[in-house]
Amino acid sequence: MTDFTGVFPILATPFRDDESVDEASLRAMLGFVAGLGVEGVTVLGVLGEANRMSDRERENVVRVAVESARGRMAVIVGVSHPGTHATIELGAMAASLGADALMVAPSAEPVPSEPRVADYYARVCAGVTLPVVLQDHPASTGVHMSVAAIARIVGENPGIACIKAEAVPSAAKIEALSAALPRRVPMLTGLGALYGQFDLEKGSSGYNTGFAFPEVLQAHLAAWRRGDRALARRIWAHFLPLIVFEQQPGVAVRKEILRRRGLIAGGIVRHPGAALAAGSAAQLTGLLEFVMPGVDVRQPIDVAAIVGA
Amino acid sequence: MTDFTGVFPILATPFRDDESVDEASLRAMLGFVAGLGVEGVTVLGVLGEANRMSDRERENVVRVAVESARGRMAVIVGVSHPGTHATIELGAMAASLGADALMVAPSAEPVPSEPRVADYYARVCAGVTLPVVLQDHPASTGVHMSVAAIARIVGENPGIACIKAEAVPSAAKIEALSAALPRRVPMLTGLGALYGQFDLEKGSSGYNTGFAFPEVLQAHLAAWRRGDRALARRIWAHFLPLIVFEQQPGVAVRKEILRRRGLIAGGIVRHPGAALAAGSAAQLTGLLEFVMPGVDVRQPIDVAAIVGA
Amino acid sequence: MTDFTGVFPILATPFRDDESVDEASLRAMLGFVAGLGVEGVTVLGVLGEANRMSDRERENVVRVAVESARGRMAVIVGVSHPGTHATIELGAMAASLGADALMVAPSAEPVPSEPRVADYYARVCAGVTLPVVLQDHPASTGVHMSVAAIARIVGENPGIACIKAEAVPSAAKIEALSAALPRRVPMLTGLGALYGQFDLEKGSSGYNTGFAFPEVLQAHLAAWRRGDRALARRIWAHFLPLIVFEQQPGVAVRKEILRRRGLIAGGIVRHPGAALAAGSAAQLTGLLEFVMPGVDVRQPIDVAAIVGA
Amino acid sequence: MTDFTGVFPILATPFRDDESVDEASLRAMLGFVAGLGVEGVTVLGVLGEANRMSDRERENVVRVAVESARGRMAVIVGVSHPGTHATIELGAMAASLGADALMVAPSAEPVPSEPRVADYYARVCAGVTLPVVLQDHPASTGVHMSVAAIARIVGENPGIACIKAEAVPSAAKIEALSAALPRRVPMLTGLGALYGQFDLEKGSSGYNTGFAFPEVLQAHLAAWRRGDRALARRIWAHFLPLIVFEQQPGVAVRKEILRRRGLIAGGIVRHPGAALAAGSAAQLTGLLEFVMPGVDVRQPIDVAAIVGA
Repeated sequence: MTDFTGVFPILATPFRDDESVDEASLRAMLGFVAGLGVEGVTVLGVLGEANRMSDRERENVVRVAVESARGRMAVIVGVSHPGTHATIELGAMAASLGADALMVAPSAEPVPSEPRVADYYARVCAGVTLPVVLQDHPASTGVHMSVAAIARIVGENPGIACIKAEAVPSAAKIEALSAALPRRVPMLTGLGALYGQFDLEKGSSGYNTGFAFPEVLQAHLAAWRRGDRALARRIWAHFLPLIVFEQQPGVAVRKEILRRRGLIAGGIVRHPGAALAAGSAAQLTGLLEFVMPGVDVRQPIDVAAIVGA
Repeated sequence: MTDFTGVFPILATPFRDDESVDEASLRAMLGFVAGLGVEGVTVLGVLGEANRMSDRERENVVRVAVESARGRMAVIVGVSHPGTHATIELGAMAASLGADALMVAPSAEPVPSEPRVADYYARVCAGVTLPVVLQDHPASTGVHMSVAAIARIVGENPGIACIKAEAVPSAAKIEALSAALPRRVPMLTGLGALYGQFDLEKGSSGYNTGFAFPEVLQAHLAAWRRGDRALARRIWAHFLPLIVFEQQPGVAVRKEILRRRGLIAGGIVRHPGAALAAGSAAQLTGLLEFVMPGVDVRQPIDVAAIVGA
Repeated sequence: MTDFTGVFPILATPFRDDESVDEASLRAMLGFVAGLGVEGVTVLGVLGEANRMSDRERENVVRVAVESARGRMAVIVGVSHPGTHATIELGAMAASLGADALMVAPSAEPVPSEPRVADYYARVCAGVTLPVVLQDHPASTGVHMSVAAIARIVGENPGIACIKAEAVPSAAKIEALSAALPRRVPMLTGLGALYGQFDLEKGSSGYNTGFAFPEVLQAHLAAWRRGDRALARRIWAHFLPLIVFEQQPGVAVRKEILRRRGLIAGGIVRHPGAALAAGSAAQLTGLLEFVMPGVDVRQPIDVAAIVGA
Repeated sequence: MTDFTGVFPILATPFRDDESVDEASLRAMLGFVAGLGVEGVTVLGVLGEANRMSDRERENVVRVAVESARGRMAVIVGVSHPGTHATIELGAMAASLGADALMVAPSAEPVPSEPRVADYYARVCAGVTLPVVLQDHPASTGVHMSVAAIARIVGENPGIACIKAEAVPSAAKIEALSAALPRRVPMLTGLGALYGQFDLEKGSSGYNTGFAFPEVLQAHLAAWRRGDRALARRIWAHFLPLIVFEQQPGVAVRKEILRRRGLIAGGIVRHPGAALAAGSAAQLTGLLEFVMPGVDVRQPIDVAAIVGA
């Protein structure tokens, strides 16, 4: 059972040209990150385009993920749904297939209500058997949870085992939550690692995000943990241009990088998601050459060598 | 095959206390409106809480609806989904179960784009075998389609057989669309009939909404069609207080009325949907007594008698 | 000093063809409603297009309103502003010109926060000398205030003298607020009187809205207060088709009616506000003839005669 | 007359503890950036908290800016307003005080409409005497303008002299606009320089943003223009951690840096804007030490020395 500390990549869902799920690529990605030694993965998040998939397809992705993980890493499954009943049903599906945890974000309702959001988590935690990652990501959900509301939810629901801290400014929120939570709960950094260094300084337990070079996040976190703060800063700063590029809206940029890494066969985004903007591919080529000249991204990259450590 | 002219009630999805789908109530509702002689029904719209249901549950609702309709009325199935691929998959499901038409609304994307919405309809129309009702309901979708955009979509997609005109001011939009559409397409009135009289004056072909007394809408439309405009106005005006009451946000009010009509066993709304506000039940009692004193709402009501025609 | 009980029309701001403020029409409107015996007026609300006016123009409207009122009725001035400092500055301006009260709604901030909204009211109440009408109108502000938050704000700020209750469902919110407020505060009905009957049943103290026939609201309220509930319902129901028509989005419909009433010279809406939709004028003619056949709307209308009381 | 090419800092509006405008600090900032040799400044943008200021205060800021600039640099004035008439009035004020250009962004209306936005620019351009910077910043305006819409607006209004390109992904939009515009219009980079390198690659003419070290943007742009692309990338990448930190939501972070630079006396943000999050000040100290160890930020910094060029 994971302690939600470390690096947990969020996986894209690869699609074929006809937009059907590309299982082979999914397995390739899972095998690659398992080989890196990450602590776990999350499937069916925003980056996974879960909201554009049918329930049957979601189930299939979970099955493939659990099979590929083979216990080498935790499998966290995004099960957020506008209906609480359906969230619980998806949670039961994930549990029955052998997943390790669920990621749950609240849905926007016409009249925002923190008590209702709290009730959502209470029902979900009561209805599922797996630990829950509370995702605090207003940019995608439209739901703003105050520090006090999250503290209350965490206090009332022992099933909440982790917070994915994606409300900006994230470092400040992590700091405020650390002071307010009634028990210690690991908080993981998302948002493509954009604020990774700042979050670590305030107590983040690691990464749970889709940056296409998880080995960078591993090196960053490892340096930070062993107290080499200067190196940690250098690693994060070195890759920041790529982090910023990837963090542009839409999943197409990230899928293009995954494609270049040989992890997915094609960078197809499901309609109506935006495809890669014209001109971005060339820009990415130049950027990769700037950040890691001469490096073959199809292999795990040697972060220490690249930053000259 | 329906011509999308007449009264097509939008059905609520009845739930038991444990929030599971109450098939018996669903059949009762379907039987009741079929008995009224409506031209069709729509299942799995916003009122149907489709967004809070799993795919399996949606499939079951369609099966029950088609079985209960037994060809007596058209069955239109809401299949809107944030992913185009999934919309088409839901459309195939509905077709395979014997539905007659699909209702399709666009989904909001981070960067609104009328060309992308047009592409959505083009892909859906190319991918499904049933006629499509284009739902123009910005209040629920967050997507605003200009008159020009809808005209273009209708022109490019022969599969679009009807427009559910729910962008306010609806009468003005119906009038503008009538002038702009490249071919005649029936436009149906939604929004709980709130603007029903105004829409009819501008060319609405009938009703496609969830007002809990479809017999009122039938009487209104019938009077209008046979040229008795004074009676038509009287009918609509007479029931307007109830229409306004029902049109308050949330589906709980409407479900409470359906419960009182004996059509559903309980007024349960799926979490996190808002339950009936305290005090509303008593208010409804007074309102029903004002609008139709002494009338047993468990039977089809005699509209002419009530308005004194 | 008003007790915020009765009918307080919200006034449109009349503009000339060149969009400059039409003072003569403004005076005409003020004189008309004063002649009706209303308890007060509100200038510079949403209907008053305050957000499209310069500070200098606002000041001028207040000056004209106070002059025209000549103590015959209270003058409430909308002073909501995205900046708290500026709200207070506008409040000082209104006070210096002799206004009687201020209407204040909170502004949406990127991260919604009830404590910050409470702080907004605390600062404003501390900074102004006039009583404050707290406007709860999420549809225009994007700010949702829970019953608990409003109760807290009212408890902490003696300066809050009235609540304009425009969060739907409004009757339910009025009922909940009545139970939750730490002291009695009059609550007034807005939203164009759409839910007027329902609000009165739950404790509304009257009207603070822009419906173009304030004499209807006066008659409705008077009947209700003297215990003639049947007549009250009849009055409201009789005019409901017109209320619904007027309550369509935008201020153009209402300005057109005011124009027909002879109260404003022209129905100009400031750009980029939407002008009257084509076809709406004809529709309005038919509607007025239906609701009050043969009545000269340029005079105060005889509500009792029209409803046959 | 400026050609909108180069570096045009967006200025914060400094406030005293009582939130009144701190003119002395404003003059200090203006003097500092003039001393750097920037091509111009923009006052009263989002960073300038213009939306929280009264008209009188805005006028004062413009007066001070023009006086301080003394012709050494262009003064661009933000005059966006929800009302077109008021935008023009503010534009006349700025012109009469000697400003050089206006920055104009559209306002969100209930029903988004590109033709209405085009009409807004047409009216403003016809009504003002100064060149207009079209600001395309959906994150603050809520208005999305397609490439085609902007091209049409630019084509129809010779008065539009520049585009502030802040719709993400900005580099892709700049590239698309370059191909679509009917005449060449300089496009400036905003968004705190977050995508500065990417924008330059696609044709940005420089910077129009509030990053608190304009000398970095000058060095970046200069290196790029003289063809030293490697150095340009190095400069941008070197300061990117600070750019990312500053680009966190709210203006408080930026004001704190300006305070440390000695340009403003205090970092006060007008209520209800969020103050600096607890813990951010310490974090900033560490970050500045990492990015430019030992550097006195109260003086213009030596970018070449810092990046080791």
